[in-house]
Amino acid sequence: MKTVTDIENMQSYAEKTRREGKVIALVPTMGFLHEGHLSLIRMADKAADLVVTSIYVNPTQFGPSEDVDQYPRDIDHDTTLAQQAGTDVLFVPTDKAMYPQGYQTFVTAEKLTRSLCGAFRPTHFRGVTTIVTKLFNIVKPHIAIFGQKDAQQAIVIRQMTRDLNFDVEIKVAPIIRHEDGLAMSSRNKYLTPQQRSEAPVLYQSLCEAQKMIEGGERNPNVVKKYTQKMIDTIASSKIDYIEIVDAVTLEAVREIKGNILIALAVYIGKARLIDNILIKV
Amino acid sequence: MKTVTDIENMQSYAEKTRREGKVIALVPTMGFLHEGHLSLIRMADKAADLVVTSIYVNPTQFGPSEDVDQYPRDIDHDTTLAQQAGTDVLFVPTDKAMYPQGYQTFVTAEKLTRSLCGAFRPTHFRGVTTIVTKLFNIVKPHIAIFGQKDAQQAIVIRQMTRDLNFDVEIKVAPIIRHEDGLAMSSRNKYLTPQQRSEAPVLYQSLCEAQKMIEGGERNPNVVKKYTQKMIDTIASSKIDYIEIVDAVTLEAVREIKGNILIALAVYIGKARLIDNILIKV
Repeated sequence: MKTVTDIENMQSYAEKTRREGKVIALVPTMGFLHEGHLSLIRMADKAADLVVTSIYVNPTQFGPSEDVDQYPRDIDHDTTLAQQAGTDVLFVPTDKAMYPQGYQTFVTAEKLTRSLCGAFRPTHFRGVTTIVTKLFNIVKPHIAIFGQKDAQQAIVIRQMTRDLNFDVEIKVAPIIRHEDGLAMSSRNKYLTPQQRSEAPVLYQSLCEAQKMIEGGERNPNVVKKYTQKMIDTIASSKIDYIEIVDAVTLEAVREIKGNILIALAVYIGKARLIDNILIKV
Repeated sequence: MKTVTDIENMQSYAEKTRREGKVIALVPTMGFLHEGHLSLIRMADKAADLVVTSIYVNPTQFGPSEDVDQYPRDIDHDTTLAQQAGTDVLFVPTDKAMYPQGYQTFVTAEKLTRSLCGAFRPTHFRGVTTIVTKLFNIVKPHIAIFGQKDAQQAIVIRQMTRDLNFDVEIKVAPIIRHEDGLAMSSRNKYLTPQQRSEAPVLYQSLCEAQKMIEGGERNPNVVKKYTQKMIDTIASSKIDYIEIVDAVTLEAVREIKGNILIALAVYIGKARLIDNILIKV
């Protein structure tokens, strides 16, 4: 594995690789890698000749009240894990190179970014679509892999890729969970031991919602209320949202049918955790 | 020369061409080609192995009060001219393919698009940067060629290309003028014979401004006023703006020095014409 920090070096290496007829897969991450990321890298390794994992804590996807400097980092550990999982090139650019003086261009997907996390983090997805556009142009991948844990992000990226005609195949890898069901996340690091022991309630509530729906419940409000109640039993929890939406349009449904996404964002202590479940009714 | 209408066909042809180690140049146009466009195509022909000229009247760069359907079109004549000038592939996509149902992603350069034409056409450059992003992803050029006549557009595209890390070299070709000095433009078609005979005042006023500056004038307001007066002698004229700006930042200057762009947009009858001149002081 080699580490590349320079944008032009990454571009010329990608160009050379494409010319050789090799397939490039990109796994964009913000580092502090866990099994969730590694599953994406392994999926990339199966699908491509060259796996590029990017590690970059992208400032434009953090809101003004969100502390980008506090985001956990451990580049040495990341380097070891990324290599073990099958990364060929670790791309680690600097802020100065990614957003130089005078930077002013942004990519925005409009409709899909207004609901769910977009409603609470109004500039977040603009930062995501902008950085992914930049990474696509720098790494020149044939395939890019995202995690289902960030369900809205995956859908927004698919839409952006289609709308802007990026010649990139988007693959979405399933959520990786701890044994107790908590979705893996770099933000779990913020949890106290007490909060960590309570956090699995998020996934448990999604599983209960699924059971209700499988049992015949079709009223989203009934399912949402039950889920909210379960989460409210945790004193340190504060719900941003629990929504039952169409899995394609991300619009709230009035009746549970078709391909449904149940998505939630909940603070446990100071960690804002997200989780979701896809259901076909 | 071959004509391609399908986006995926264009992409796979571009990909194949790049793999062969050939250089692709893109000349994006809205058609109704004149000598200005042809000079861009000839420049592309000198610089690249494969010249792709796109013809697409992009609806997203027209404002709500601007009639995209009225924009002049003549695809048969365009096909002949484009081929004669050295086009290898004429890319002529449809609206339905470019902006399918549900389309929602836009590229925006912020600061540079607030002045000059951007102040009068608030969504225009968003449409331009979006369509150019799409064309870059479809045609996969090494080089893209724009005209100096659209001075602000050229600067915005350069900024966007740099910011989003497109691996594309932007070349800007000089303004082509009729013998009487009027800059060539598809919009000149809207002029009545009387207006056509008066329209050269735009370039004449820029030349007078240049003379004043060469003669030592450093106050932009003095130069602007003189220019305005010249244009106001034409009864059918209505000035959107005459500005003297820094040629890099497009910010208005208080004193004329360095690299200066004098740019104007003036209605002659119902034709909104633009012109500009670069001066190094």
